[in-house]
Amino acid sequence: MSRDVAIIGIGMSKWGELWDRSLRDIFVEAALAAIDDAGVDKIDSLYIGNMTAGLFTGQEHLAALLADYLGVAPIPATRVESACASGGLAVKMGYLEVALGMSEVVLVGGVEKMTDVGTDQATYALATAADQDYEVYHGITFPGLYAMMARLHMEKYGTTREQLAQVAVKNHYHGSMNPVAQYPQRITVEQVLNSVMIADPLRILDCSPITDGAAALILCPLELAKKISRKPPVKIIGIGHATDSIALHSRDDLTTLKATERAAQQAYRMAGIKPSDLDLAEVHDCFTIAEICVIEALGLVEKGQGGPATAAGMTTLGGKIPVNTSGGLKSKGHPVGATGVAQVVEIVTQLRGEAGPRQVANARLGLTQNMGGSGGSTLIHIMEVAS
Amino acid sequence: MSRDVAIIGIGMSKWGELWDRSLRDIFVEAALAAIDDAGVDKIDSLYIGNMTAGLFTGQEHLAALLADYLGVAPIPATRVESACASGGLAVKMGYLEVALGMSEVVLVGGVEKMTDVGTDQATYALATAADQDYEVYHGITFPGLYAMMARLHMEKYGTTREQLAQVAVKNHYHGSMNPVAQYPQRITVEQVLNSVMIADPLRILDCSPITDGAAALILCPLELAKKISRKPPVKIIGIGHATDSIALHSRDDLTTLKATERAAQQAYRMAGIKPSDLDLAEVHDCFTIAEICVIEALGLVEKGQGGPATAAGMTTLGGKIPVNTSGGLKSKGHPVGATGVAQVVEIVTQLRGEAGPRQVANARLGLTQNMGGSGGSTLIHIMEVAS
Repeated sequence: MSRDVAIIGIGMSKWGELWDRSLRDIFVEAALAAIDDAGVDKIDSLYIGNMTAGLFTGQEHLAALLADYLGVAPIPATRVESACASGGLAVKMGYLEVALGMSEVVLVGGVEKMTDVGTDQATYALATAADQDYEVYHGITFPGLYAMMARLHMEKYGTTREQLAQVAVKNHYHGSMNPVAQYPQRITVEQVLNSVMIADPLRILDCSPITDGAAALILCPLELAKKISRKPPVKIIGIGHATDSIALHSRDDLTTLKATERAAQQAYRMAGIKPSDLDLAEVHDCFTIAEICVIEALGLVEKGQGGPATAAGMTTLGGKIPVNTSGGLKSKGHPVGATGVAQVVEIVTQLRGEAGPRQVANARLGLTQNMGGSGGSTLIHIMEVAS
Repeated sequence: MSRDVAIIGIGMSKWGELWDRSLRDIFVEAALAAIDDAGVDKIDSLYIGNMTAGLFTGQEHLAALLADYLGVAPIPATRVESACASGGLAVKMGYLEVALGMSEVVLVGGVEKMTDVGTDQATYALATAADQDYEVYHGITFPGLYAMMARLHMEKYGTTREQLAQVAVKNHYHGSMNPVAQYPQRITVEQVLNSVMIADPLRILDCSPITDGAAALILCPLELAKKISRKPPVKIIGIGHATDSIALHSRDDLTTLKATERAAQQAYRMAGIKPSDLDLAEVHDCFTIAEICVIEALGLVEKGQGGPATAAGMTTLGGKIPVNTSGGLKSKGHPVGATGVAQVVEIVTQLRGEAGPRQVANARLGLTQNMGGSGGSTLIHIMEVAS
């Protein structure tokens, strides 16, 4: 029924505290880089992943605005939102439009400008991803939600404080090799354990930062990609998308990310692969505990084994399945609506063999997992080098 | 390549100032009504049109939240935004998912809860649909933008103050026959002309109100609709989606809605019809001048003739092409993200012959036009009774 879809262009802005530049500036930088990379001269449709530009910058109507500012109006332009999974959702929607044959060349962008407001306002804006009436109203914010998940994981599975720290250490090691990373500094377990407490047991170095940044992709039919792409096209072979209760208190088990489990099953089935076939993955490490729960939900490790596997180096570059070679949200940064698109940028970079010092040897098959809130929504994509 | 798509269920909440109910309450009311109307017992995917729940209610991550609250999680749930055209955009996305074969039964909802904040905050939230950096920062809000369009239309085409008022009089007449309308009161030209000045020449009775409300649709493949639908399925035969500059000052002509012109051309071509084939239309009358510009951009009247045609009754129930039989944004209300979905609800109601006292005789072919900002984005859908 539908057409195969390939990614032929990728682009990123620098990620960090970009006080001298606006949301539209950083989007256009990433979009132009993707357009140059693909070598296309025409875009048929635009999808934008953005969580909450209304609260961060006072700007909605964002996709039409960015189409205008990029100079591609009057093309159709669609903004999608699923909290911190907005970028992954934009990738899915771009895929649908190309697969259906409604457009040939689609630009998928993710962008968030988070540092133009104070920390209190940023915390409020991010908390809109939780249940406003039943969670946020009572005073909780995201570090607190993930801290509860961490406490229970430690209690049930014996996960240690040091194992949580190993996630951060690994991702900063990876990020030290990524030129666009916000915090490319290498860190040690001791530094994590001695950093400022945020929500017990999570410390500041367990948390992803507040970031300005954008990422972009060019999607087209695989057949067209084979004709026009100057680099190996990367085919999207699996997609998963699922939801769970937004409020943590409504779940059977705080340590199980059901939306990720379900989305992964969909994506593996569509791709015809199993977790052990993967060469690498980019996952949603908004907090160190999140990466541990996610690699379990993806079936990369047994339930409860995320901590020991991380400490043993299984997910480090050179290990059995490198996770977050980009540096992840922790080191590369987390401009919330851009993250899901940037995860795909990293997988494409790796599958093309363009990742330089952080290249995964013989990378053929990669996965991205992008998550909203405390796991209330999840988007998964599986990609391979087109044969 | 793709499947035909039909609408088999419609639902609305009451529209108005619903101070005793929350955003999720009114969405669930509309969604359950649509599910009952369609007689389905399973939803595969959810799309939500919402402009700015972040600013109105402090809640993002809205689609996953509403899937959860409706009790349909873990299905995929996607929120889309294109300012006041968010509802129309949700309809398009639902169409894509069914046409592609990714889902069988899709729930498309639109919702906005606007009255939980004060008027200043509501005005600020709505202004995020304009260009924040180049328009809003300098103090303009939407009545001012549309007032400039009205002034130029009067100057160029001789449109009169009375003709603007006729749009409001007609839509309140239609709305008086719609049980869910926020302001079902009939009004006179004199009342419009003597109402409070907002932005010269626009008075309060030229402006659509601030509204709480929700609307919902059930979409499925036409083949399935023919098997399971208890009512005549309504087929989506044309879709148009285009953008224009967000900022009014960037346009060649303030009285020409280029995104609507372009989206209309796309939709007419896809449907294989011309404007004169239409039996009725629901259009975006956020201000009286908007309806006049829109019916010109749709080709229902010659350029500049929107005012005289309205005054002559061409767009009134019983006229050549009734426009906004629901009451339109003006009388029915304008919960911004819900409007585009509610427009489709009205067309389906009419095509089924269920519109009661406001029924258009022999309605077979209808169009919806839903617009973001001052025309920066537009979504158009054309529907017919499935044969």
